[in-house]
Parts: sequence; C-alpha cells; structure tokens
Amino acid sequence: MSSERLYLYDTTLRDGQQTQGVQFSTAEKVRIAEALDALGVDYIEGGWPGANPTDSAFFDASPETRARLTAFGMTKRAGRSADNDEVLAAVMNAGTGTVCLVGKTHDYHVHHALGVALEENTENVRASIAHVVAQGREALFDAEHFFDGYRDNPDYALEVCRAALEAGARWIVLCDTNGGTLAGEVGRIVGEVIAAGIPGDRLGIHTHNDTEQAVAGSLAAVEAGARQIQGTLNGLGERCGNANLTSLIPTLLLKERYAERFETGVSLEALAGLTRTSRMLDEILNRVPMKQAPYVGASAFAHKAGLHASAILKDPATYEHVDPATVGNTRIIPMSNQAGQSNLRNRLAEAGLEVEPGDPALGRILERVKARETEGYSYDTAQASFELLAREELGRLPEFFEVKRYKVTIERRKNKRNRMVSLSEAVVVVKVDGEKRLSVSESFDELGEDRGPVNALARALAKDLGQYSGLLADMRLVDFKVRITQGGTEAVTRVIIDSEDGKGRRWSTVGVSANIVDASFEALTDAIKWKLIRDCGAPHGRNGV
Amino acid sequence: MSSERLYLYDTTLRDGQQTQGVQFSTAEKVRIAEALDALGVDYIEGGWPGANPTDSAFFDASPETRARLTAFGMTKRAGRSADNDEVLAAVMNAGTGTVCLVGKTHDYHVHHALGVALEENTENVRASIAHVVAQGREALFDAEHFFDGYRDNPDYALEVCRAALEAGARWIVLCDTNGGTLAGEVGRIVGEVIAAGIPGDRLGIHTHNDTEQAVAGSLAAVEAGARQIQGTLNGLGERCGNANLTSLIPTLLLKERYAERFETGVSLEALAGLTRTSRMLDEILNRVPMKQAPYVGASAFAHKAGLHASAILKDPATYEHVDPATVGNTRIIPMSNQAGQSNLRNRLAEAGLEVEPGDPALGRILERVKARETEGYSYDTAQASFELLAREELGRLPEFFEVKRYKVTIERRKNKRNRMVSLSEAVVVVKVDGEKRLSVSESFDELGEDRGPVNALARALAKDLGQYSGLLADMRLVDFKVRITQGGTEAVTRVIIDSEDGKGRRWSTVGVSANIVDASFEALTDAIKWKLIRDCGAPHGRNGV
Repeated sequence: MSSERLYLYDTTLRDGQQTQGVQFSTAEKVRIAEALDALGVDYIEGGWPGANPTDSAFFDASPETRARLTAFGMTKRAGRSADNDEVLAAVMNAGTGTVCLVGKTHDYHVHHALGVALEENTENVRASIAHVVAQGREALFDAEHFFDGYRDNPDYALEVCRAALEAGARWIVLCDTNGGTLAGEVGRIVGEVIAAGIPGDRLGIHTHNDTEQAVAGSLAAVEAGARQIQGTLNGLGERCGNANLTSLIPTLLLKERYAERFETGVSLEALAGLTRTSRMLDEILNRVPMKQAPYVGASAFAHKAGLHASAILKDPATYEHVDPATVGNTRIIPMSNQAGQSNLRNRLAEAGLEVEPGDPALGRILERVKARETEGYSYDTAQASFELLAREELGRLPEFFEVKRYKVTIERRKNKRNRMVSLSEAVVVVKVDGEKRLSVSESFDELGEDRGPVNALARALAKDLGQYSGLLADMRLVDFKVRITQGGTEAVTRVIIDSEDGKGRRWSTVGVSANIVDASFEALTDAIKWKLIRDCGAPHGRNGV
Repeated sequence: MSSERLYLYDTTLRDGQQTQGVQFSTAEKVRIAEALDALGVDYIEGGWPGANPTDSAFFDASPETRARLTAFGMTKRAGRSADNDEVLAAVMNAGTGTVCLVGKTHDYHVHHALGVALEENTENVRASIAHVVAQGREALFDAEHFFDGYRDNPDYALEVCRAALEAGARWIVLCDTNGGTLAGEVGRIVGEVIAAGIPGDRLGIHTHNDTEQAVAGSLAAVEAGARQIQGTLNGLGERCGNANLTSLIPTLLLKERYAERFETGVSLEALAGLTRTSRMLDEILNRVPMKQAPYVGASAFAHKAGLHASAILKDPATYEHVDPATVGNTRIIPMSNQAGQSNLRNRLAEAGLEVEPGDPALGRILERVKARETEGYSYDTAQASFELLAREELGRLPEFFEVKRYKVTIERRKNKRNRMVSLSEAVVVVKVDGEKRLSVSESFDELGEDRGPVNALARALAKDLGQYSGLLADMRLVDFKVRITQGGTEAVTRVIIDSEDGKGRRWSTVGVSANIVDASFEALTDAIKWKLIRDCGAPHGRNGV
C-alpha cells in the first residue's frame, strides 16, 4: 500500500517555553534541538528571534540539523511595509530557511486586539508572507484563533488563509489558540476548509490541551485531510500544553490505521529512543517525569491488578496495547496486595532470586507483604525493601550489621552573629562482626549548612561499619519522600528513600513509623543492606546460602 | 430544548486504586466518596469486596450517599453455580443496591485466560447477571476487552453483551481495557453496537488513556449514542489512567454542544467546587497537583505570553475557552502588572484584610511571595501562612511570643523487655510578655507510644505560652504533609501542617528548610500564631492596629 507523507512540526522550543515555570537556556535549547533531530521531526521551531534574548542566541548557536530549523514571529503591523517592520526584520535576520508567522483570522480579534479593518489585516498577512517568500524562504502561516474565528465568521477566516496561501505560504496552520474546540469539531471544520478549496497537503493543525483533547483533535484533523501536525515533547506549552508529540508519534507509527497510510520522518529505530528523549527533557527541566504518561511513563506498562498481572505472564498482549520495547519503555509488575504467586516469582526472578513454584516461602512472603501493607508499608516502588523482606523469608539475607541503638539531637538557637541556626547530631551504635562500634556525626552540606536529622543519621551509620565501610563510599541519597498514611488505626509516616551509587544503580527502600526519624532510619538501613548485598554478594553473611 | 440524561459512573475508588503507588485507607475512601457525592456523580464504585480488605471495610463503613454505591466483582467462575461462587458471594454480601460484574467478551481471552468454551463463558455471564437481578439489585456488566474482542470476533463480543442485557443488566459497559483503541474507532464501534440492537441508553463507555485519548474516546461514544461514562477523578487508574472525569464533567456542562443536549447529576454550583475536589484528592495521595491539568490545574488559566496577558486584561475571552470561576479555578497573570495586584487584594479580603488599591504594601507582599516561592514555599494551600506574611508587611501582625531556641532528642534503644522503642523529647524556650519560659515535653499518644519529634515540639511549644496557653487547648494537628522540593539550587523540605480547633476552623501553614524538623517547627509556630489572631484579635499585639 502506497503511503502519504505526514509532517511533524515541533514547537517545544517556542510554544513549549510558554509553560509556566519553563525558561530554557541557549545550551538547553541546543541539546533539545539535537534530540528532536535524532528523533526525526521535520521542523524545529526554535523561538522568536528579537522577542527573547535566549531565542536570538539560540539561532546564532543553532546546531546543524536534518530537520528544518524555523524562526517564529508575527505578521507585520499595520501602517508600515514588511520591509520597515523591525519586529519582522529580527525574525528574518535569524537567517533560517523556514519562517513561521502568526496572524489573526478571527474578526473579533482584528477589531478588538489590533483595532484595524478586516481588509487591512488580510493585506498585512498577504504582504508579510510574500515578503518571506521573496527572500527565498519557506513560509508558514499560523492562523491564530482559527477555529473560534471560523465559528463566528467562516468567510473571513477562510479569506485570510487564502491570502496567505496565494502569497506563497507552504503551510496554512489552523490553530486552536484557546484550546476549547472539541476534537470532533476540529475534524469537521478541517473537512470544511478543504472543501472550501485549501488543499489538505497544505494544511497543518495546532491544538492545545485545555479540554484534554489535543492529541485527539490533531488526529481528527489528519483524518479530515490535514498533513502537518504541530506539537511539543511531553505536551509542554501555554496553560494546559500543546498536542503531545510524545503520544502522537508512537500512535502514528504503531497503530495500523496510521502506520499503513502514512510515512513520517521518524523511524522505528528512533522511536525506540522516545522514552529516553522524554526523560531527558524532564531532566533538563528538573521535573519529576509523569508516571502515567502514555507510552513513556514509568507506569505506562505497570500491571497492578492481580488478574492482569497473571495474564501478562502468559501473554503480554492480553493487557498491553503495544510492546513497551517499541518506545524504549519497560514492563513493571509491582508488588501489591492484589498480586498472586506467579507475579511474585516473576518479581523475585528480577531480583536474581529463583524460587521453585510451590515453595512454601512464597506464601509466607505474600502474607508478610500483606501484613506490612496494612501497617502502612508500600512495595510498589520500594523494590529493594521488598527484596530484603523476601530474602529474609528465603533465608538468604546476610546479617551484615545490627543496630543496637541511636540518638539524634536537633538544636536551633542563635549563633554568635545573632542569626538563628540549626545543628543536627547523631550517635549510632552498631555491632559488626561481633564488635560494638559507636559513631557520631553532624549533618551539613558543602556550604556547612545543616541538612537535618536524617542526613546526620546516614553519615553516622555509614561512618564505621567495619569491613563494609569502604563499600558505601560511592552511595548517596538522591530522593526522600514522606507521606502520612494509615497504619492500622493510627496515622503513621511512610518514608521512601531513593539511593544511587557510582556503578549507576538506583534503588528505593521504605520505612514506616509514627516517628518520622524512625521511619527514615529504617529506610536508610534497608538501603545500605541492599547495597552491601550487591557489592559483597549474599554468601558473606551468616544466613547466606 | 429538551435534554437527555447522561449518567456519570465514578471508579476512582476501584480502578483508580490500580494506579501505581495508590492505596487508599478506609477513611480516605469515605472522604473521597463524600466528595464525589457532593459533586453529583450518579454511581460510586467503591471497590471489590472480598478481594481487598480495605474495600470490604469501606462497604461496612460507607457513608449515606445520594449516588448509587456500587460493589465491583467478576462474573462467576466456570464449573460452579452463581450461588456457590464464594468470590461472587463476597461481592453480594457488601449489600449495595448496585453491583457491577466484569466478564470476558474477547474470544481470545475466553480461550487463553479462562480456558473454557465460548458458550460456557456466555452462560457464566448470563447466570451471574441473572443472580444479581434475582436478588433485587441493579446490575451492570463491564464487557472487558470489548473493543479488541469486537475487532477480532464481533459476533461473539455482541453475543455476550446481549446475554447480559437479556439477563437484566441495566447497563452494558463497553471497556477498552488495554487502552489502545483510537477515539474515532471507539465512536464507530459504539455506533455499530447500537445498530446491532443494543440500545444506546443501556450502553456505558470505559476507556483508558494509553494513547492520550480516553476523554476523546468517551465523548466519541456519547456522540454515537452511549449514555453512561465511566471515569475517575484526576484520571487515576491502571497504567496511564482512566478517562478523566475532572476534564469530562466541565466539558459536558460548559460546552454548548453537550450542555444543550444532556443533563447530568452535576449542577453548575457543584462544578464550581471541582478544582477544590481535585486538589483534595491530590492532598490525600500526597501528590503534587498537575499544574497543566485541564480546567483545574494551577496553570490552566495562566497566561505567560506577553501578547496574551495584555489582551486578557481587555477581555478574558480573548485567550480563555471558559471562565475559570466556573470550575473554581483562578486566572494567573504575571504578578508585576495591575491584574496581579487586584487578585492579591481579593485574596487579602478573603482573610479579612481590606487594603486600598495602590497601597505600596501590595507590591512588597507580591515581591516577598515571589522570593519565598523561589526558596520552596508554596502558598496555594497554606492560606494561613500567606495571611501572616501579608500581615507582617501591612504592620498588622501582633508578636504574641518569640521562640528563643529549641532542642529535640530522638532516641531509639531496647527497653527492659528487650524490645526496640523510641522516645522523643523537646525543650522549647520562648519569650512571652517580656518573660522567658522553658517547657519540656515528651511525645506520646493515648497508648503511650512515641509519636516523634514534631509531636514533642508541638506539645512543648503549647505547654506554656503565658496568657495564650488556654486558647490553644482546643487546637490540634490533623495532617502533616512533607515534600522534597527545590529551594534555589539545593533540595529542601517543605512541610504543610493542617490544624483545626473546637470552633470548627481548619487552616494550613507551611515551613521550608533543609532540616525537616525546622521546617515542621516553622509551620507549627505559624499555625499557633494564626489561631491566636483569630481568638485574641489582632489588636492585642504590640504591632496591632
């Protein structure tokens, strides 16, 4: 079956930067542009040169890309020629081969925001596009508020688009600027626009997620005949975000309906890097990746329901719409009180613990997980604590050390300079290889500032563990999560600690107590034990096998 | 125009609990059920009694609701009668007026997951639904994997649904269990099901968000004739989540296309509480609310682009698809401008602080909020701390007491019975009415168990505040939330404390520090100060007006 070309236009660096709290540096823009190019999008909109200093700097420093680098701007203002509009000149001066200009197509905005006559606005659009084309550039026209405008005055909205087309625009992009248009309506209107004489292979679609339909609206436009989609990575963008290319791309490549009809610039090989690209963007933004994100989220292929989890073990297709490997993601079968024995064996195997079906330890492990979940523990994410619990029941947990007691003091008072300061100090008493060891530590960071009781305890505990101390040098706490939960009848504190080490391992442990310091200490000791198992191997301990 | 009834079925407490990391307590389930009922959904699916201890406990403790409380379970297993299936019996024993049973409609699953003949499965579904109806309950049939099944073997998928309908099911719910069906396909297939003789007003739709089209798929099903939508608050649910009712409900009520045609159980008054309900669920889950969430997200009406922000000031409709007040949300415009100040004045007025427009304190308050948010503070929910900050800038904050220093000790060791126990002790030194006062307190609950350092500090602080001590007798800490967040370049801890008193007041305060005990103490002192302002009135203090 012959396929049609469908173009992907990324605006992460421009509309994505309108996300509240997002401001890319030039270096970050370069890194993202390179990732987009590796993914295979057709256009990379880099920003609005002139309007934003970082955007101008990015175009000066822009990398060589296969994708067409595009400068964004607005059509010339009334009362001057395109040549004499310095805002437009700044856009042209970025020197990109492609230029996208936004202009009004909604009569209400022409009257109230611009305050000019309808004909004058049409003429400004025509002259601006003609100016871009005359300089040998590829031109796009972003038809702002097109869908609202079409509803109020379809003739005028179409007239402006036709003017841009006649002036030589390669693409007329229909924008649902306010994001309020329903997906079905987007499809219907795009169909009417094509029927009114603007060819589908000259039409793009630009939606926003204000009714959670940006992806569906983009697909509806494609069904109706549009052949360019504008969107952003991870659905970044003004207010609720733009159409999410991270969801759209796998749908276009993996779903038969689109895979058979269309060709895009994204290969199946590149698609397998999608999860990594998505996480990289979150890392640049210092955001926690959205677990529930379609295709690329950590939970996207997590099977919690017991019935689902056991069927998945027989055949993944039973509860998965696509293979997680196609987008570079992985399947997760978390431990929870809804899981069965087969699920459990699978989980143990992942931790390197092979257990025969029917082993009575399996039942004991499930019972203990259940009992501890009633107390407030959670093993969905705390895989390392789960492994320790299982090892204990299987007789495969070495006793590296025993904590006899600890004491933490937190003091807040004025220092010599009359400033209130805190000091946390911890004493930990452990028994290692039959010998009692006392360690004391204060808590502080590089700047000498107090980091609190958990940090002090972690330092004191790691300070002297005899033969094991050296192994902990490359380990560090990377995250610490606390929630109040119900343990039996009383509220208790659940602490989850994420640790990592120099070998690139990352693991999570859990502790529960009415006392937040106790809960943290439990998670902390679990984290150290797990690390010692990995580095020493289980056989070193006296319960080892 | 006469309108048709459209039913909303909430499964936050059942499918929503399949979200990775989510495990509701019974008390939390009750609180969520009450919020759902106040919102006006028609059905509240409470869980699977028998499969999960919390679910069984919830049905025992379930609140009186206008909405129909529904127990979920699966159709009887092969080889036994409905009467003799103890899994089904546990579901019936919950005693709800409505029961929803899930069963197979995809021939592949009947063969491979159940391992029974197709006719036997059909018969199991028929007998199970008949059993529910015979006991005088309203029955729903969740047709699992319906869309995948219909694609592979439409005759069989329809046959099972017809059997359930003939056995008396009020609703046949078409489930896209794996979430891979495109919205357009959902609409087409629902249309074909209706054409095949199953009436639309007996059809429900249950979608998942694996291609980011759960909302669009639900609406496509409604367009095709289905009259019940199943979904969850905030789109919780297995993998990528279920259809998000928090997005669907405002779309159904506010968008002309649906508002004119359909009536739901949700009133416009209840809709104005939607943002609060959504945030409450996040609070229970200790999740950071998703800023970009449609309608209810903090960024949903945030206008960052300069062109947008200035147009919004002239007419909000220029860049907003609906009025944020309709869903109880608020517009956010860069703080520096005029609109930022009028928003601030409204918020101050809510706290009983009338401030004249143009008062220079307004600018100072905005600056300080901005600076503290950079440090990691958040005033979205901590309204009481916000009020204290504003009072300070306005010179209306009495200095009830001053904390000179404090010291907390947490010790964990073996007691006489050789059991590890904890003991937390706090010493607080305050100056009240010019006099220094030392107080010491241990931490413990009714059972004499240690409750940790924050509890000890709260006790010591409240123990002796001179003339104010009596006023604090009816105050108690009801919740304590901790998040690790970014303060400048370092990770810091943000603590939010919810307090309430005997007069039915409930208020939230915030503290931020690298030391979790410091952060808690700051939130704690804010909580006490706010209470004293309410009970003494501001004029008592030396900065009072």
